[in-house]
Amino acid sequence: MKTISTAKSHGGVQGVYSHTSSVNNCDMTFAVFVPPQAKDKPCPVIWYLSGLTCTHANVMDKGEYRAAAAEHGIIIVCPDTSPRSSDGVDVPDEPDNWQFGCGAGFYLDASEAPFDTHYNMYSYVTAELPKLIATEFNVDMSRQSIFGHSMGGHGALTIALKNPDRFKSCSAFAPICNPSTADWSVGALEKYLGADKQAWRNYDAKSLIEDGANFSPILCDQGDGDNFLKMCDPQALIDVVKDTDIDLTSRNQEGYDHSYFFISSFMAEHIAWHAGKLN
Amino acid sequence: MKTISTAKSHGGVQGVYSHTSSVNNCDMTFAVFVPPQAKDKPCPVIWYLSGLTCTHANVMDKGEYRAAAAEHGIIIVCPDTSPRSSDGVDVPDEPDNWQFGCGAGFYLDASEAPFDTHYNMYSYVTAELPKLIATEFNVDMSRQSIFGHSMGGHGALTIALKNPDRFKSCSAFAPICNPSTADWSVGALEKYLGADKQAWRNYDAKSLIEDGANFSPILCDQGDGDNFLKMCDPQALIDVVKDTDIDLTSRNQEGYDHSYFFISSFMAEHIAWHAGKLN
Repeated sequence: MKTISTAKSHGGVQGVYSHTSSVNNCDMTFAVFVPPQAKDKPCPVIWYLSGLTCTHANVMDKGEYRAAAAEHGIIIVCPDTSPRSSDGVDVPDEPDNWQFGCGAGFYLDASEAPFDTHYNMYSYVTAELPKLIATEFNVDMSRQSIFGHSMGGHGALTIALKNPDRFKSCSAFAPICNPSTADWSVGALEKYLGADKQAWRNYDAKSLIEDGANFSPILCDQGDGDNFLKMCDPQALIDVVKDTDIDLTSRNQEGYDHSYFFISSFMAEHIAWHAGKLN
Repeated sequence: MKTISTAKSHGGVQGVYSHTSSVNNCDMTFAVFVPPQAKDKPCPVIWYLSGLTCTHANVMDKGEYRAAAAEHGIIIVCPDTSPRSSDGVDVPDEPDNWQFGCGAGFYLDASEAPFDTHYNMYSYVTAELPKLIATEFNVDMSRQSIFGHSMGGHGALTIALKNPDRFKSCSAFAPICNPSTADWSVGALEKYLGADKQAWRNYDAKSLIEDGANFSPILCDQGDGDNFLKMCDPQALIDVVKDTDIDLTSRNQEGYDHSYFFISSFMAEHIAWHAGKLN
């Protein structure tokens, strides 16, 4: 692991690091906030997964998570949203398509060439990066939660549903709840996973729940001033949990849009909610 | 005034606006956060002045001021740091010099051609923009405070010292306390104000206090891990107020640098401190 930068913030340390990922076959950059409490004892960790077009830096700069993380003594890890080209590595991409390729990894493991060589964000976020974090930081891996925004909300939901024993809680800001049936996202799923729609269900919160996956508790916030409201489809999640025992709190936030101005407004509340399960 | 964008955030509205400035002879962009309390009553205002290379957007994105501003019911106005070229207006600049020209207006009124046509940030921030804000927002102009970072901390200090009756309080993050004698800044002051160093004293906190200016209370935070510590020279301010009745609280913040990770760490505390004087 290589340290790119560190800065003291809110009593802790906000760092940016990189390493060579063997599952993505490229260098990956990520951000970690370590609260002051980690000097004395292992701290729980919350994974924050970002949305389309973002890197690790967007939420680090604009998410306003450090005050709450320092208050509750929680490590926050912010991975990138996809593999990226770097020295000697050419990651296939469609630079003009913000819904596919770099910045749009969808937290899945691609099965289709040429994308399967690099686009393995599911394995990266659930296996390779946690192993590195457990080695390099003073983290209590028995206490993990996960959250994210938009495509990262999709990531948080699907990863929690597939790993129910690992996480204490899952939350999301404007998550994409049903990407396998939405016009805007099926193109990406087909390129990564092939034409068989059955494979797409494995990376779709609504479909996973229909197929029996179960995770509690889940907290979702969705602004009704969000231009991507239809794409996020919070009602799909509300409807599908009705026949389950999943503990879902889905809140409409009046007038909020899809931006970091929205995310940051509810960030402290989400972290406090997770802290109640982690501490 | 033209609205560029608005977004609901922390219960209030974060907006970005532009207008044609007659003192700067160009279009100027600025950010305003209006807290939810402004729906019901005029709210006090704090002016935030940013540092070298910044626009209105840096602190808006990374300053983490909205939660505290919403809590205390305070409008936050974030001007740009200089005039800028726009359609049909060519503002003189030195693009390779980050300490002069665009992004480096030093909150002064230039006296030297060709800069005097556009570089009048002192009049802009103290007269033209306040008039616009008073007209366009539900603000109580009898309750104003001012703060800023680095070059903007210099701006806040010098503007408060020259307008002691207008502001209830002044604070700064790593302010430049004595720019008229520092190697890195005298070049800019000479180009804007001419070779007569007496004129520079009018835009230098230490010199203004030596010449009898007076303002209280002042709160300053300075990180001792700041690469620009020498350039900021907090000791110059501590020393010069010793022979005055100025109420200065100057704090060393161990391990903090010059970045927004530092600013955001103490932002809520500064706003709460100002709120105690304003509300």
